[in-house]
Amino acid sequence: MEHTQEDGAVEETNMAAWLSGIKKLQIRPYHLPPLGPNDVKVQIKALGICGSDVHHFKNMRVANFIVKKPMVIGHECAGIIKDVGSSVKSLAVGDRVALEPGISCNTCNLCKNGTYNLCPKMKFFGSPPTNGSLANQVVHPANLVYKLPDNVSLEEGAMCEPLSVAVHACRRADVTPDTKVLIFGAGPIGLLTMLAARTFGSPKIIVADVDDSRLSFAKHLGADAIIQVSTNIQDIDEEVAKIHKLMGDGVDISFDCVGFNKTMSTALTATRSGGKVCLVGLGPSPMTIPLVPAAAREVDVIGIFRYRNTWPICIELLRTGKIDVKPLITHRYKFTQEDVEKAFETSAQGGDAIKVMFNL
Amino acid sequence: MEHTQEDGAVEETNMAAWLSGIKKLQIRPYHLPPLGPNDVKVQIKALGICGSDVHHFKNMRVANFIVKKPMVIGHECAGIIKDVGSSVKSLAVGDRVALEPGISCNTCNLCKNGTYNLCPKMKFFGSPPTNGSLANQVVHPANLVYKLPDNVSLEEGAMCEPLSVAVHACRRADVTPDTKVLIFGAGPIGLLTMLAARTFGSPKIIVADVDDSRLSFAKHLGADAIIQVSTNIQDIDEEVAKIHKLMGDGVDISFDCVGFNKTMSTALTATRSGGKVCLVGLGPSPMTIPLVPAAAREVDVIGIFRYRNTWPICIELLRTGKIDVKPLITHRYKFTQEDVEKAFETSAQGGDAIKVMFNL
Amino acid sequence: MEHTQEDGAVEETNMAAWLSGIKKLQIRPYHLPPLGPNDVKVQIKALGICGSDVHHFKNMRVANFIVKKPMVIGHECAGIIKDVGSSVKSLAVGDRVALEPGISCNTCNLCKNGTYNLCPKMKFFGSPPTNGSLANQVVHPANLVYKLPDNVSLEEGAMCEPLSVAVHACRRADVTPDTKVLIFGAGPIGLLTMLAARTFGSPKIIVADVDDSRLSFAKHLGADAIIQVSTNIQDIDEEVAKIHKLMGDGVDISFDCVGFNKTMSTALTATRSGGKVCLVGLGPSPMTIPLVPAAAREVDVIGIFRYRNTWPICIELLRTGKIDVKPLITHRYKFTQEDVEKAFETSAQGGDAIKVMFNL
Amino acid sequence: MEHTQEDGAVEETNMAAWLSGIKKLQIRPYHLPPLGPNDVKVQIKALGICGSDVHHFKNMRVANFIVKKPMVIGHECAGIIKDVGSSVKSLAVGDRVALEPGISCNTCNLCKNGTYNLCPKMKFFGSPPTNGSLANQVVHPANLVYKLPDNVSLEEGAMCEPLSVAVHACRRADVTPDTKVLIFGAGPIGLLTMLAARTFGSPKIIVADVDDSRLSFAKHLGADAIIQVSTNIQDIDEEVAKIHKLMGDGVDISFDCVGFNKTMSTALTATRSGGKVCLVGLGPSPMTIPLVPAAAREVDVIGIFRYRNTWPICIELLRTGKIDVKPLITHRYKFTQEDVEKAFETSAQGGDAIKVMFNL
Repeated sequence: MEHTQEDGAVEETNMAAWLSGIKKLQIRPYHLPPLGPNDVKVQIKALGICGSDVHHFKNMRVANFIVKKPMVIGHECAGIIKDVGSSVKSLAVGDRVALEPGISCNTCNLCKNGTYNLCPKMKFFGSPPTNGSLANQVVHPANLVYKLPDNVSLEEGAMCEPLSVAVHACRRADVTPDTKVLIFGAGPIGLLTMLAARTFGSPKIIVADVDDSRLSFAKHLGADAIIQVSTNIQDIDEEVAKIHKLMGDGVDISFDCVGFNKTMSTALTATRSGGKVCLVGLGPSPMTIPLVPAAAREVDVIGIFRYRNTWPICIELLRTGKIDVKPLITHRYKFTQEDVEKAFETSAQGGDAIKVMFNL
Repeated sequence: MEHTQEDGAVEETNMAAWLSGIKKLQIRPYHLPPLGPNDVKVQIKALGICGSDVHHFKNMRVANFIVKKPMVIGHECAGIIKDVGSSVKSLAVGDRVALEPGISCNTCNLCKNGTYNLCPKMKFFGSPPTNGSLANQVVHPANLVYKLPDNVSLEEGAMCEPLSVAVHACRRADVTPDTKVLIFGAGPIGLLTMLAARTFGSPKIIVADVDDSRLSFAKHLGADAIIQVSTNIQDIDEEVAKIHKLMGDGVDISFDCVGFNKTMSTALTATRSGGKVCLVGLGPSPMTIPLVPAAAREVDVIGIFRYRNTWPICIELLRTGKIDVKPLITHRYKFTQEDVEKAFETSAQGGDAIKVMFNL
Repeated sequence: MEHTQEDGAVEETNMAAWLSGIKKLQIRPYHLPPLGPNDVKVQIKALGICGSDVHHFKNMRVANFIVKKPMVIGHECAGIIKDVGSSVKSLAVGDRVALEPGISCNTCNLCKNGTYNLCPKMKFFGSPPTNGSLANQVVHPANLVYKLPDNVSLEEGAMCEPLSVAVHACRRADVTPDTKVLIFGAGPIGLLTMLAARTFGSPKIIVADVDDSRLSFAKHLGADAIIQVSTNIQDIDEEVAKIHKLMGDGVDISFDCVGFNKTMSTALTATRSGGKVCLVGLGPSPMTIPLVPAAAREVDVIGIFRYRNTWPICIELLRTGKIDVKPLITHRYKFTQEDVEKAFETSAQGGDAIKVMFNL
Repeated sequence: MEHTQEDGAVEETNMAAWLSGIKKLQIRPYHLPPLGPNDVKVQIKALGICGSDVHHFKNMRVANFIVKKPMVIGHECAGIIKDVGSSVKSLAVGDRVALEPGISCNTCNLCKNGTYNLCPKMKFFGSPPTNGSLANQVVHPANLVYKLPDNVSLEEGAMCEPLSVAVHACRRADVTPDTKVLIFGAGPIGLLTMLAARTFGSPKIIVADVDDSRLSFAKHLGADAIIQVSTNIQDIDEEVAKIHKLMGDGVDISFDCVGFNKTMSTALTATRSGGKVCLVGLGPSPMTIPLVPAAAREVDVIGIFRYRNTWPICIELLRTGKIDVKPLITHRYKFTQEDVEKAFETSAQGGDAIKVMFNL
């Protein structure tokens, strides 16, 4: 879509995918904010759909974050620099870049302490009321925009966002070569956590899921063992026994990338004394779980919210080939009115769709 | 009770309090194991009653630890050295000492890593099937027996055990002068956690309890603020609002020394993003709690099991007067058949009984 | 000094102490930068002289930081808000405040990680080429300006700066009630480190210095023991033996607030296996020290550069009376041409001058 | 060598390599201590020569550890279980095992805290006055003897000892995928540290040495870059510039596996603000180094003494093929009087000899 500027030049109108109702996405013009001295303008070229995007798409809300008026959706993205603010020195027009989606205040105590992901003033792409990045172009602070090496594709750049969750979880839980890992959930975050945990040195990783084909995929991607679990809370003891047998030794760290009573209960029971359970997937609240016997074995529960300081390491992991995220991108769509809702539906259905990606 | 040895000398028979049924304690002879080269024989002079002792007394079990045959009860104790094994150099007959009750294997991975409190082979005074120390004399490894300075009484020495739980909790949760603290429960462990947190530098401590008089006692002992809470889960939001107002700033670390759904839910909700909830009191399992919204603010849950490496610091805190445990000892009993069940009943009733102590 | 504005109003000219040569300070007009939306204008009321200020005064340099053109000196300061930028909500005109002197970039990796004190783009009061704060007024970012409680004086507010060094050292070295501490140097930083270490829970602190009267002052302020040491490297073994005797047990953490070969060598030798030596005072380079035998006992060396995130805790420590810095303020001067060089000479001579303070 | 027992059976006499003077090793009978209930008897099959063994061989001392009477040498070893004590359940005759050489007291504060490598009562194979393990058989506590998986050879088992130093260094320095590493020294410890750092996730490792061929070997083993350095202290600035250029970004952690003034000075200068220098190789004392400017950038110095709790992880790293130590074993000798001194001379000469191994 083009229109004629006052001086006669033709400028392409910036379009974005607006979430305007349940399962209703419209590609409509999106007027960009002005380019500040420390900002860059980025043409988005790849954008992945996240579980939270699907939640917004289906429910117009995630937890207490409610979509009250039309909002541009999307936040896992990469693109090409089209313009740089007057003070920006680290980036130049034409650079291929990945974008970290959250803008923190940088001056509150949580930011100054290095925990900027917990900043109460955070503005995050596609988290209401902040517009997202499923758009032709966005304006973003240069310090949250990271140049990609030649051998890292734009799609891989977009994958830095979900990979960041996995890396943050492995850092917070302190995965090392001393750590035997159990992961619940073989969706994108579970699989990326598996790849990240391997990179942090874990010598043995077991993945648990209810879905046979997802487990096969996990095995194919490098899980040392897989275990099919039920959704029945009665099966916990039996499943823990199987996990212990598969692991040989104890489970040092469990990552619950699902976040249900069943997964969390199994994780708390399976993890060895002095180990940790890291709650990555956020399910319904409240939870009913055997926390007391776990706490009495000094099994700590570590909470995760997004990530902090992860883009450089993610890009380095992709550059060196230590992590290959490409097999996770199972579906691709164009940025057209025809495709946009279809892409979200595909992501929502799960099944063989791991990561659904837009190519803009 | 005395009897005549073969050589004509008169030896006092060693007596102990045997738990032989629900609320049934009998003072009967207790034959000591032989004194090994690294052991000492200690005449017990002071022994405090712990909540877990009361559980055993009332239910013949604590969690999965079941009293299947008569067992000597008690584990918070101090006394005087009566004999030392052939290799013992650090202690001498006549030394006044406090006893750490748990004997770990020292060679498993958890022990070697410094987490001996989690040793699966732990033998712990009065935890079935290991006999306790409410006896005239016990035999114990010298490395778990600590000499008391002149200005620390034997009763204070016995208080090293519950104080150890508090110190371990403050260490594990990492209390410092940066830490504003909320404590649920103004019983012995809650109060000792308050005193310990103060010693670790906490500038502001709020204590919450249902019992008005216990709260007054907490205030008297040094709480910066107290708050009376209900047992009604509906009151959480209102109580959290009060806590936040009292604290001014956020709660950095909450210690739940009660361990009920209500207390843990309030703790998870009241604690600031990036803070910690330390579960010290172990209540019924499973728990129903709002773990997800807390985890999504990276509030971690830290479990506590007893303590490790705490006697030297506890004795130092008592010696320097940084902690005064004497006000907590509210009731004293003799080691007689007449008094022994009465003492446990007093402890079980709670109320104004904080710590009930035997003087042997 | 006053001048007439265009509208006829009379405005006081802002004056500052300009370092314009060795031992040469001139009080001359200082034109303030414009007040940005996130800035505040502060009337300075109290400013303490730091050892680094004295270095600049005497040598026109500290390490590689060289004073190449006249520069306003000073950085330990507190005052009263005179104006606030349009976006500032946390502060109001008339507020009594302490100022954190360093402005970091907030966007580099070191800043984002919470280690903003290491920011390579730091602009720090009175560190060339950035002007300092020994002036009637300064403009500063609001997020580095902290409101003082009613019971904390402006002089105490200025003391937050050197106290921050001590608090940062105790945090980095991880002082707790488990930590027995040895401090070299009974000057302002050594004494404040002693007070901070006490607040972090240290049960036993020994202070070492060459100066008898400074040691007496340390004892008076609360040192558990003092030891007079020589500047002769040959005396180390004898002095370490004395320290060990005084400490009873081992030294867990040594703070070298002097930074000479002798002090660092003694610290490395006196500290127990697995302990730490924290190098706070920065002396001549290179150092000749017995690092190898210390490293072979896993004694780590922790470096300190200024501080981060310390003003809130310092103000809290002053508010609650846990630390009393008032006895350290031994000399006071006015902000006049007559007094300004005299004040620096007094501070330079040391002796009974601990902290020299300007009252503006 | 055989002799006839009283009952007519023929028993092989146990032989060992006794260090009885400078460069003087004699294979003579070695009478084993009795097999305690928690001990095992191991037939040694592979033993590697360590730099400290060579020091003993050449100087009859290492630091303050002096060989005052003939002592069996050697400590990097693996073998086959020949007998087990009455209480041993974890091992059986015929098991292939690696031996952790140091017996700590298990009851002092350092042991209880998990830092048993610092135990002052440590008895360590071949560290005077404790006899080593270059012998046909040794008796050792079962908890220090680790079963090897089928796919890990006895020579690899012996390599667990030097690999343990590398793993302990990576743990203490906290190497992760966030860590870019610089290593000084391409001898066995430097190379193993490189392999271990890779396993802990380091994405970029530079190895520095004076020896061209050792650097080639390091490159062949997987270094991302190598740099030939001089022994001239004047070259530091130039070499640091080269290192920074090679690294692109800063050096997060430097391992000095040499321990000379030059290497340590270069490491302190090359490491980024907030990074760490880990001193692994222990050279002459005292050191003359630019510690002050490094400390003023909060570069910490981490000391290393042997290792703790490393055998299980080392065996797991070998089992999974994450680390391949076989290329480091460059020379092999028999356990004969003819070969024994020759093997030590080969190890002492360095050059292309990385690890010299005895096959018994």
